[in-house]
Formats: sequence, structure tokens, C-alpha cells
Amino acid sequence: MSIPLITLLTDFGSSSGYVAQMKGAILSRISDVHLIDIAHDLPAQSIPHAEVILRSVAFQMPEGSVHLVVVDPGVGTSRRAIAVQAGGHYFVGPDNGVLGFALAMSDAKVIHLDRSEFFAKTISKTFHGRDIFAPVAAELAKGTLFEKLGSPMNDALQSLLSVAKLGDKMATGEVWIADRFGNLLTNIPATWAGEDFELQIDSKKTRRVKTYGEAGSNELLSLVGSEGYLEVAIKNDSAASFLGQASGLLVEVKRP
Amino acid sequence: MSIPLITLLTDFGSSSGYVAQMKGAILSRISDVHLIDIAHDLPAQSIPHAEVILRSVAFQMPEGSVHLVVVDPGVGTSRRAIAVQAGGHYFVGPDNGVLGFALAMSDAKVIHLDRSEFFAKTISKTFHGRDIFAPVAAELAKGTLFEKLGSPMNDALQSLLSVAKLGDKMATGEVWIADRFGNLLTNIPATWAGEDFELQIDSKKTRRVKTYGEAGSNELLSLVGSEGYLEVAIKNDSAASFLGQASGLLVEVKRP
Amino acid sequence: MSIPLITLLTDFGSSSGYVAQMKGAILSRISDVHLIDIAHDLPAQSIPHAEVILRSVAFQMPEGSVHLVVVDPGVGTSRRAIAVQAGGHYFVGPDNGVLGFALAMSDAKVIHLDRSEFFAKTISKTFHGRDIFAPVAAELAKGTLFEKLGSPMNDALQSLLSVAKLGDKMATGEVWIADRFGNLLTNIPATWAGEDFELQIDSKKTRRVKTYGEAGSNELLSLVGSEGYLEVAIKNDSAASFLGQASGLLVEVKRP
Repeated sequence: MSIPLITLLTDFGSSSGYVAQMKGAILSRISDVHLIDIAHDLPAQSIPHAEVILRSVAFQMPEGSVHLVVVDPGVGTSRRAIAVQAGGHYFVGPDNGVLGFALAMSDAKVIHLDRSEFFAKTISKTFHGRDIFAPVAAELAKGTLFEKLGSPMNDALQSLLSVAKLGDKMATGEVWIADRFGNLLTNIPATWAGEDFELQIDSKKTRRVKTYGEAGSNELLSLVGSEGYLEVAIKNDSAASFLGQASGLLVEVKRP
Repeated sequence: MSIPLITLLTDFGSSSGYVAQMKGAILSRISDVHLIDIAHDLPAQSIPHAEVILRSVAFQMPEGSVHLVVVDPGVGTSRRAIAVQAGGHYFVGPDNGVLGFALAMSDAKVIHLDRSEFFAKTISKTFHGRDIFAPVAAELAKGTLFEKLGSPMNDALQSLLSVAKLGDKMATGEVWIADRFGNLLTNIPATWAGEDFELQIDSKKTRRVKTYGEAGSNELLSLVGSEGYLEVAIKNDSAASFLGQASGLLVEVKRP
Repeated sequence: MSIPLITLLTDFGSSSGYVAQMKGAILSRISDVHLIDIAHDLPAQSIPHAEVILRSVAFQMPEGSVHLVVVDPGVGTSRRAIAVQAGGHYFVGPDNGVLGFALAMSDAKVIHLDRSEFFAKTISKTFHGRDIFAPVAAELAKGTLFEKLGSPMNDALQSLLSVAKLGDKMATGEVWIADRFGNLLTNIPATWAGEDFELQIDSKKTRRVKTYGEAGSNELLSLVGSEGYLEVAIKNDSAASFLGQASGLLVEVKRP
């Protein structure tokens, strides 16, 4: 049997000990487990950013993986802790939309994590990642039944990510986030756009290319990104800096 | 039997290969081991910063864990290499105060790492993390007896972290460090402060809250942090930036 | 038998999900494997930077390790994907010089990764790290024979790193890269320089020391670095900032 796998996605940064505390909480409950960092240097408290990254990574992992997501500006308030089972994977995190991608799947089951026997003995007000979410993720990795860990619920918060308006020949959407290179990830699905689209961003034309290598310098490029959505980039430069903005920029796409 | 666990805490940054070299030195000696990064992007050569993080993480890990700490401005000088056994855990690092937290425990045993048969064959002058500390940590993970790895000593450098003055109704202390969000960790223990304290920082009043969620914007908040010490924060903002300083800021706390 | 080990070296940064996607591609093919991050926060698309770090780390890992390197500005163009077997280790990455260090070894064998049965089912144009390199690295970790994974080739791109001119008493070279502390790694081998060298950088004298601890502040130091090359540093400060440049700075060394 394969080794259970827990991924970790937080906005705790790489210079704190918070992520390691969560790993300690897991490893104190289950020793033989793969812990895979997705990212911890997200923009602080950016729920959309975390969801975009989560949806690009989760199903690259083996079936049965547990995804632990702690981007949690509402920690200590009445926001609920939840877990989701969807597509053969498990997701654990706050009920703030960050798991919206998993919730929207057709086979999604959601529970409210309301059984404190699975938590740490003392629960801090400010660090549910360590005291609630990590222990529950460890339980799932150990094989504890999903249904045992909480009560069914059906009013979890949905995704905060905007959905593009897809017409017959025209789509209107926006930029979700920029990556480290300043490449802009839009919400226009590549499957809608096809091979022969024209993309304008912030009312500026772009040159459609298949790879960065094809392009010259200093021009806005549009291409099918590795996540299955259209992206806007500048070769060897930052499109986000060039346009002075990233999230929310208007994107318009035509297809023949 | 569970898999041995070694944590790593350094100031080497995440863009060098130094941490990976240390992991190579470990994995060349023991293959079946969990390597858990605590943090590597600490402020360079900040011994207090490393100790604060170490003490918040170490005992979250399972008993028997080995904690490898390399924040070592004196590498290559006459500062000694040491290991500490305390509280069922092992600590390996330079004798510069960074392990002060472990040294102060009532059951602490300390050895001077003076047995070169446990080191790399050649020892560089500038990278004892790879050539001395990592090999010794690997020995501990393999089950080599602590006492075999060096000579007992009793004059190791103590913690550099300031201790608050705790009176009957008044405590005076200071900020140890800021985390990535600009939240300020003080040296005032939450157990002293209780539920009903008033905290001033740099002679400025703060509003006591239980969670960040309770607060409005632009006000200095005081709360019990997840490490068991009082913290100062601003909701969705950096208290460190607001106050123009972090480490060493004066903190005064009253309790009824 | 020991657990197979794959290292990962990329310029994807620590705030994207790209590295985790590569890990997912590996773990979907082999569950029991050590995944060791070398670094992901390299300067974007800096092939020399990646090679310097790779050569300092690779042979610190146990024999049989697989090194997966994705610094790949030419992704999606006609640049080839390659794998190298050298010195008892395996290397997988683009044919752009980043594996030059391994290629130059006397026992190096090189193959063109041209067998799509070992790749992901669909290959994106922009993310061969996930779709080609990671799956091939997983095959090597699983024990698939190197020769089965591609066709032999002998025209792979060599290292982009400059080689110093080593005379009898004088060597002329340059700075390869700066590390996080601003220490400058040169291309002058310590074995050539010996114990009693004099180093000038950018026509400025330096003081030769054995360790940082020996030096005062504000002076340019030269020393034998932990990688076996001469380094230039300033104690508790950044030599790169002081000199206003790093890569390419002229270095001249005399020996008696």
C-alpha cells in the first residue's frame, strides 16, 4: 500500500515556524506520511490566490491525498472549520471559499469539523492550522472515515473566483492572479478559446503565441497556460509590472 | 517503530544550495529519515530570532526528534559545536546561545562535539552545518548514544533572549521579534497576564482582543498569541511598520 | 535497500504551485521516494546560477540520486530534453547548459528524451517540468534503465560557466554568482590558490582570512569557500552591494 500524502498550502511565509508546527502536529499522530509543501509565500490572506494554486495542484497528486489549506483571515471568529471529499481527494480548511473549487465538484461531500476529540487538547484562538486542521488531516491520512470527523453540511461558502462570461464568439473575463514572473493567469478556459483566439487585456491587443520562445521582447503575449486557462505574458519581463496591475484586469477574447 | 525525524533551522535562505548540502550529508548516512524544514529565511545571523522559532516548534515534534540549528556567525572561530539532550529531544548546533531554550530545561545534558570520527572526512572552515552538525544529527537519528558523540560540558552559552520582569500587578518586558505579518511577539507570558490585562507598547495603549477578527482597522491590538506569549498586532496590517521598530520595543502590562 | 532520492532545482519560486505539480507527477508514479528541494528561488531563468548550485549539491547526495533541474527559458521551442548519467548519479533537464557540469565528467552518458511513452499523456507547451522531466525522473527512481529512456546523443550544450585562466603564479577569472549574504563565489579553484594567495577583485585589494570571524568590519575579504573555490566577502555585510555588481566582476589572484 502506498504512503499517505498530505499537502500543505498556507500564507504563513517561509520565515516563521508556523508551518513546521503544523507538520509536528501531523507527525505526532502519524509517522509514515509524505508531507508536500504546495506554497507558503502566498500574498497574506489572499483567499483567491490560494484557491487558484490549490486547483492547479490538487489533482496532480495521487488519489486519496489530503490537502490542508490554511489561509484563514477569520481564525477565531465564528467561521467554521470544514472538510470536503471530492474527486477521490480530501480537503481540510476554513469555510471561507478557499475550498470552493472542491465544493463545486459533482461528487463533493462536506462536513463541519465539530468533533473536538480529533483536535489538539488545547485550542489556541489564533492558530487553528496547528490545533484543528492539521490534526484532522492526520486523521484522514491514518484512514479515519471522513464521515466520522464531523457533521454533514450543505451551506459552505463557495469560491470567490470570478467566472468568465463565455458567449458564442466573445468571452469577457478577468485576471485572477500573477505568478512570480509577472505572467497573468486569466479565467478564460483554453477549451473555450481553441487555437485561433484574439485576446485583449485592459483594452490592449496581445500577440497570440504557442510558447514564450516564439516571441520578441516588449510585446504582450497571449497563450494557453499550463493550468488550462489563457495567460498573458511578456517574454523575459513582467506583464503585471508593464500593465501596472494584475488581479481584476479586464480580459476580452474573440474566437472565429 | 517510527521513522526518525530531523528538523532543520538555518539562516541560509531558500535560494542557496546550502540546506540541500546538509540534507545530502544526512541522507548519505541514514536513508529512512524524515527531514522537516523549520525555516531558512531567518534574518541573517539573528540568534534570538532562531531561538524564538526553535522554542515554538521543537516540542510540537514527536519525542526523540533531532533539531539541527545552524545560525552560526562564529563558524570557523573557537566557538564550540555542541549537542543538547532535553525533554526527550535532541538539539545540535553552535555554542552561541541559539540552543539556550533547551539548555535551560531541568533535565538538560550538554556535550561538546569533539569527536571527529563522527564528522565529514574533511571539514571546511566556513560550513560546519554540512561537515559537523549534519553528520552528528544523522548519528543521533541512527540511534548512536548521545554520550558517545562528545564530552560532557557545563559552561555552554545561555539564551540571548530577554526575560520580562514580572511583578505582582505590573510586568515590564520587550518585543522579541516580528513575524512575517508584522505581528510582534513579546516576552510577557500569557500565564502571567491572564484574561484581563492591559498592554502598552512604546508607551502607546492597545486594545485587548481574543482574535484578530474582533478588531477594527488601524488600531493596535494585544492578544494571547499561539506561542503562549502576549502579542501586538494590527488587523490586516503590520504593527512593526506602524511602530517603526520591532525587536526591543518596550512593553508594559498591567493585570488586576 | 535504500529509498530512492530525487532532488528538485528550479526557478519557479516558492509562491507558485509549479514545484508541487512536479512532485505530484513524481508521486503519482512512485510513492516511496525522498523528494529533496535544492532551491526554487533562483534568479529567474539564470542558467549559470542553477549550474553553480547544482554542482555544489549533487555529489553531496547518496549515489544513485536523480537530480531534476528545470531552469528552462527555451521551453516549448526546439531545445531538447536530456538526461545524463555521470559519477553514479542521474541528471534530468533541458539541453541548455544547465547540466554542463555533469556532461563534462569523464564517464558521462547523455540521452535525448525522445520516448513519449515515459511522459505525461498530454504535454503542455509551457511546462515540460511537470509533463516530461518529472515523469522521467520518476522512471529513473523506479529503476527503469537509463538507456531505455531515450536515444544516445553527443552534441549536448556545454556549461555556460566561465573557466578561470590559471597561470603559474597568476590566475585571472571572474565572479560566478553572489549568495544571499552578498558573498561572491569566484571561478578560481582553491586547489590552485593554496594557502598563501593574494586576491584582487575589480582592481581592489582584499584581505585573505581563513574565516569570517577573523576579520574586522568594512573590509573586502578573500577566503576559501565551502564549495572549493575562492570567495570574496565582507563581514556582516554584502560584498555584492559594496561593489555594486556580482556576476562577471574581474578577479585576479597571485600565488607565491
